[in-house]
Amino acid sequence: MEGREQKANIEIEGVAASNWREATMSGYGSEFSENDGDAMMIRVPLLKKRTNQTSQLAIVGANVSAIESLDYEILENELFKQDWRSRKKVEIFQYVFLKWTLALLIGLGTGFVGFCNNLAVENIAGFKHLQISQLVLQDKYFQAFAFLACCNLVLATIAAALCAYIAPAAAGSGIPEVKAYLNGIDAYSILAPSTLFVKIFGSIFGVAAGFVVGKEGPMVHTGACIASLLGQGGSRKYHLTWKWLRYFKNDRDRRDLITCGAAAGVAAAFRAPVGGVLFALEEAASWWRSALLWRTFFTTAVVAVVLRTLMAFCRNGNCGLFGEGGLIMFDVNEATTKYSAADLLAIVILGIIGGVFGSLYNYLVDKVLRIYSIINERGPMFKVLLVISISLLTSCCSYGLPFFAPCTPCPPEVGDECPGKGRSGNYKNFRCPAGYYSDIASLFLTTNDDAIRSLLISSSEKDFQLSTLFVFFVAMFFLGIVTYGIAIPSGLFIPVILAGASYGRLVGTLIGSFCDFDAGLFALLGAASFLGGTMRMTVSLCVILLELTNDLLMLPFMMLVLLISKSVADNFNEGVYDQIVKMKGLPFMESHVDPYMRQLVASDVVTGPLVTLSGVEKVGNVVLALRLTGHNGFPVIDEPPLSDAPELCGLVLRSHLLVLLKGKKFTKQRVVTGSDILGRFKAFDFAKPGSGKGLKIEDLVIEEEEMEMYVDLHPITNTSPYTVVETMSLAKAAVLFRELGLRHLCVVPKTPGRPPIVGILTRHDFMHEHVLGIYPHLNVHK
Amino acid sequence: MEGREQKANIEIEGVAASNWREATMSGYGSEFSENDGDAMMIRVPLLKKRTNQTSQLAIVGANVSAIESLDYEILENELFKQDWRSRKKVEIFQYVFLKWTLALLIGLGTGFVGFCNNLAVENIAGFKHLQISQLVLQDKYFQAFAFLACCNLVLATIAAALCAYIAPAAAGSGIPEVKAYLNGIDAYSILAPSTLFVKIFGSIFGVAAGFVVGKEGPMVHTGACIASLLGQGGSRKYHLTWKWLRYFKNDRDRRDLITCGAAAGVAAAFRAPVGGVLFALEEAASWWRSALLWRTFFTTAVVAVVLRTLMAFCRNGNCGLFGEGGLIMFDVNEATTKYSAADLLAIVILGIIGGVFGSLYNYLVDKVLRIYSIINERGPMFKVLLVISISLLTSCCSYGLPFFAPCTPCPPEVGDECPGKGRSGNYKNFRCPAGYYSDIASLFLTTNDDAIRSLLISSSEKDFQLSTLFVFFVAMFFLGIVTYGIAIPSGLFIPVILAGASYGRLVGTLIGSFCDFDAGLFALLGAASFLGGTMRMTVSLCVILLELTNDLLMLPFMMLVLLISKSVADNFNEGVYDQIVKMKGLPFMESHVDPYMRQLVASDVVTGPLVTLSGVEKVGNVVLALRLTGHNGFPVIDEPPLSDAPELCGLVLRSHLLVLLKGKKFTKQRVVTGSDILGRFKAFDFAKPGSGKGLKIEDLVIEEEEMEMYVDLHPITNTSPYTVVETMSLAKAAVLFRELGLRHLCVVPKTPGRPPIVGILTRHDFMHEHVLGIYPHLNVHK
Repeated sequence: MEGREQKANIEIEGVAASNWREATMSGYGSEFSENDGDAMMIRVPLLKKRTNQTSQLAIVGANVSAIESLDYEILENELFKQDWRSRKKVEIFQYVFLKWTLALLIGLGTGFVGFCNNLAVENIAGFKHLQISQLVLQDKYFQAFAFLACCNLVLATIAAALCAYIAPAAAGSGIPEVKAYLNGIDAYSILAPSTLFVKIFGSIFGVAAGFVVGKEGPMVHTGACIASLLGQGGSRKYHLTWKWLRYFKNDRDRRDLITCGAAAGVAAAFRAPVGGVLFALEEAASWWRSALLWRTFFTTAVVAVVLRTLMAFCRNGNCGLFGEGGLIMFDVNEATTKYSAADLLAIVILGIIGGVFGSLYNYLVDKVLRIYSIINERGPMFKVLLVISISLLTSCCSYGLPFFAPCTPCPPEVGDECPGKGRSGNYKNFRCPAGYYSDIASLFLTTNDDAIRSLLISSSEKDFQLSTLFVFFVAMFFLGIVTYGIAIPSGLFIPVILAGASYGRLVGTLIGSFCDFDAGLFALLGAASFLGGTMRMTVSLCVILLELTNDLLMLPFMMLVLLISKSVADNFNEGVYDQIVKMKGLPFMESHVDPYMRQLVASDVVTGPLVTLSGVEKVGNVVLALRLTGHNGFPVIDEPPLSDAPELCGLVLRSHLLVLLKGKKFTKQRVVTGSDILGRFKAFDFAKPGSGKGLKIEDLVIEEEEMEMYVDLHPITNTSPYTVVETMSLAKAAVLFRELGLRHLCVVPKTPGRPPIVGILTRHDFMHEHVLGIYPHLNVHK
Repeated sequence: MEGREQKANIEIEGVAASNWREATMSGYGSEFSENDGDAMMIRVPLLKKRTNQTSQLAIVGANVSAIESLDYEILENELFKQDWRSRKKVEIFQYVFLKWTLALLIGLGTGFVGFCNNLAVENIAGFKHLQISQLVLQDKYFQAFAFLACCNLVLATIAAALCAYIAPAAAGSGIPEVKAYLNGIDAYSILAPSTLFVKIFGSIFGVAAGFVVGKEGPMVHTGACIASLLGQGGSRKYHLTWKWLRYFKNDRDRRDLITCGAAAGVAAAFRAPVGGVLFALEEAASWWRSALLWRTFFTTAVVAVVLRTLMAFCRNGNCGLFGEGGLIMFDVNEATTKYSAADLLAIVILGIIGGVFGSLYNYLVDKVLRIYSIINERGPMFKVLLVISISLLTSCCSYGLPFFAPCTPCPPEVGDECPGKGRSGNYKNFRCPAGYYSDIASLFLTTNDDAIRSLLISSSEKDFQLSTLFVFFVAMFFLGIVTYGIAIPSGLFIPVILAGASYGRLVGTLIGSFCDFDAGLFALLGAASFLGGTMRMTVSLCVILLELTNDLLMLPFMMLVLLISKSVADNFNEGVYDQIVKMKGLPFMESHVDPYMRQLVASDVVTGPLVTLSGVEKVGNVVLALRLTGHNGFPVIDEPPLSDAPELCGLVLRSHLLVLLKGKKFTKQRVVTGSDILGRFKAFDFAKPGSGKGLKIEDLVIEEEEMEMYVDLHPITNTSPYTVVETMSLAKAAVLFRELGLRHLCVVPKTPGRPPIVGILTRHDFMHEHVLGIYPHLNVHK
């Protein structure tokens, strides 16, 4: 990065005297004010600090250099206006019809994938556990361990290889990336078809390999990928374009689709349609409209219907080992509805524990991720090796811990059921003599979903020993932490629910005699508290858990425990997803403004002079501006003789300039040729490409004589960019920027008689790192 | 209105040559561009059209002239900046602490009021029905009717008198007004303490009087009033101010509180905490942040806990006739979870019926409201008379229709229960011989809540006859329509649920044999479809109904039926609340922009020249500007010698000017006295008053010689108002205005060298009526 920048720097200086317009050149230094993605590295005075930061960021988020901001501004240039005026009424109907069709398709697709995912996992993991049960019954303990470890290793290696070699973006939960996308940050290939492919299969193999990971986060990412794929309008490469889909070739409509996709993902993962909508609203989306609420709701309703239909099909035993399980749905209907003061105390205790453990979890995840990123950046092979070692560790824990645990005598009332012989159930006879069972084996040697179900079961006769719960909690807590961040698709919900439910049940066993709650309800509240402490969502988690457990009567308890754990944890650090977004170096725009931003004004953070273009500009200058800067937007200034005094004509985008240059509508003289260009191009030519980066400046071939010709930028100039006055506080400008989802915000001078634009603010200019880089003395914490 | 305006007009012209600054005066005509509230009447070219409209609006919304816009813009003037800089860290903690304390108090208050409301209604209505049962058992049919009619009449008259004489704003549902408030429209006394008082007691008496009205809408309004009262920071009149509460003396924090209040209202009305949050989000609020989601959620959780505790107290029989009833909670847990294709068809049928009936309902409500408003505007006495006649009609229907209905033989399996003798139950023996019962009496001669419960009961043995269901549906449909709009607090939820459940059960009885659903589920889906058809909410209704019925398994059906009925009904007209907001003449800013707005630019709708002030202005000019215009914001222009060329210094608010004038910090010479003024005033002096209108220009006494002195406006001028360029399309400007919740939006010229401001846009300038008044040729429906 630094090399490139230095080169650019030298080149700029080299051409200064030749064909670069002097007005622009005079103040042209080594600093760019607008350069999405690369912004962090190219301000010379800050270079040292930045470099440190960059390297740290690059460690964690491999794709930091490939970030592109999204633009939700309404572009008002002549070409688009002409297109809009000529739009027929039928096209509006087409658009509305398509919007709903796509929502339907997203729902169908995500529901189907979600079901298949569960089907595959249940069958693979079920087969594995069945074999192990058989081997254990024959007292072949070593063979059982070898089989378990090998199975896990093979599955883990496949998942890791897919992730490391095909789509590195598919590793991890995916929720932070989707969240960042919906905030306006398009990280490279985060929603690409290859990512979708790896996410689906990697998640199946990863979960089946017995890792302490969930399939819920990956389902959200999968839903978003499906939505993105459907909204791309086919592929030009394979000539699969369809005229109608061009309406969706913009950031705004894609954002809506991907919001629907994220909601559908949660709905499919938890069978929680309302929870899905709320998740999209509370955690994923940065902008929201009530029209979108309705569409999202439709999508998740479709998911719910698809899942119901497919599960009804499986009820007849058509789906192998799938049975009734898979999609988690814990029925704890027998829970008490009365409560006393002691129960409220229990809720407070659980909430506080959840908050403390939750923030500790986030802290440790952060540390582990930083260590892992050092390993992961050494190459795909190292990624696979890391996965293999964690797989071996997991196998050892899940087989070894039960191996050394004592046996419990069977309760007399269950009769033949104990010790059980099947692959699931609570009375595993693992290594125990007749009449005894191993309670810890029924948690470790099963799928994560079954373990959660065992913990949440209400009936008190299936009690776990205190030591069992403690060991399981510790194992899940730490395995969850070391597993997140390895190169497989890994959700955080399941590890957190597992750990939370086990300490909830632990607390319930300890203080249960004072309370009306039973152990299952304690486990559920424990899971809620830990989820609240790590993820810091309240409403959506509450609804998801209610939908999972199908009991509305414990709603107030759930709300309280979530609120308490979130409040406690918020004192220590941020939610885990926010933390990961930050660590990946994604320039996330928060919805609130930090107080120190009120001490600065907009012009304070505008660094370096601007690269401006003239209304009718020499082609060579345009090419140079595109080549030498990373800017994505250039102010267009009309100057005499085109106007009486220099005036801000508007803002032109890099992508539009590239299309215009490719069209080669140049003139020998400096004349306005607007209508000519309007006839030559269609608005669709300037639409955002579906995938990939679209045209690059390197792709253009401009002849030497063309460089001396002129091109009229007026037809593609957005004539009404949002502007703020230079004396506006940075906080107020940030509100505008964030609320309207802008990519560029023009800063104009307060007093007349100066050049009509002071600078351009982009997402990076509002980031702490940038502001504090310029003003290190500012007290961020005030 | 017209008289006043004409006077203003003449006066302006009269003073033109004397003490009014020429620059301002030269272009001063008869049109004001910025005048919240009065805007609709004072543009001369449009006078005729406007007058018609105004009179029409005035009929419906009595308070249309008392509307004030709210302002959510961050004001950056020197005084506020100074205040902000001196703010200590402890004050931020105070603020956060208070925010949560207020949320807690709102929850406690609303929960308590909601419970008391139900307690009172159940006891009053229960006593009434008990007496009637006794009289009927003694065959005293006429006495029973007389008793019923008298009871209803007395209760209705009390409710109407409260409404008509004390707080007219308490009539109706209140949801449209709360919705408008949260959109930035403060209608006169809509959240005043007197309104709260009347809303609570009027609702109790109205519901107890047997009207086909609910207590749910009024609960939302009650919650909002409680929130507003708590957020006002005491009362200066009674010396109950408390320093801490000054943080809430602004529109933004009040908006948050009232959002919490609205959510708490729904939570208290339906015992649906999650539904309450979603209602606030989907229907009530226009702006939303995720921080607010959390706070709202806390408030509704508190409501849920309060209700549970109080109901647990009542379970021992401490609450008279309250028993287990009151707060509706329908348990239809036995409903089937299987479904077939025929069931999906039934859902589609119900959805379509709901959509058609829903839009018809809205249409009729609209018409009836227009007729009623003619009666209501004749005076409070007419309001009371209207209520009395509707009360008599209701009494006749609810007693007369069962009177002429045939009897049904008791089913043998229920034994002694039929005919029942109590005040509730499904086997009323009203007028029937032994061994027979009147099924229609069990719907009409009971409270609305009990009727809903009867309809939603799943067990099929308690079937209603087709004719009964039909008669009940028709009666509820039309009584609901004629009752809304009379001068009592009247919710729309209950009438709609009653009508919907009866046609749902009707459809179920007709086609039930093809389906797996039972009649109770049909009734529930019917209620959902009708709610969807009238109110057009989806997610929140779905969750509210789920929380009411406590069965999550029918979620997908409910979602589908709501989506279908909403989609069908949206083809005909708007949701009932939107319709009422429009009819009341409240300038509601929609979240979407109409396509025709893209054909106009911002300067197109700026009408009439501007009243501007100078940075240091003659007191007389300021007073004149305040007296002669209704404007609430004035641009401040710095002119030579204060600056080199005329430059836009910012925007000053009427309320701030009034406070400044009252302080009388005037100077003899035209000099900048900023720091002097900064020392004289505190930011709190300029805070928005709690209730009432604050200072008025008529309250100020300015001596003749003071009029010739100067006042420095700089310290109170917002130096960074949001601006748009005059060539920005109206649609794009509307997005900015709406998203940021502005009150004033400055339009600046595109080209340099002109006066620095073209005009100011306010809420009214974006309204259809205004735009189409100027450009009648525009095709709104494109």
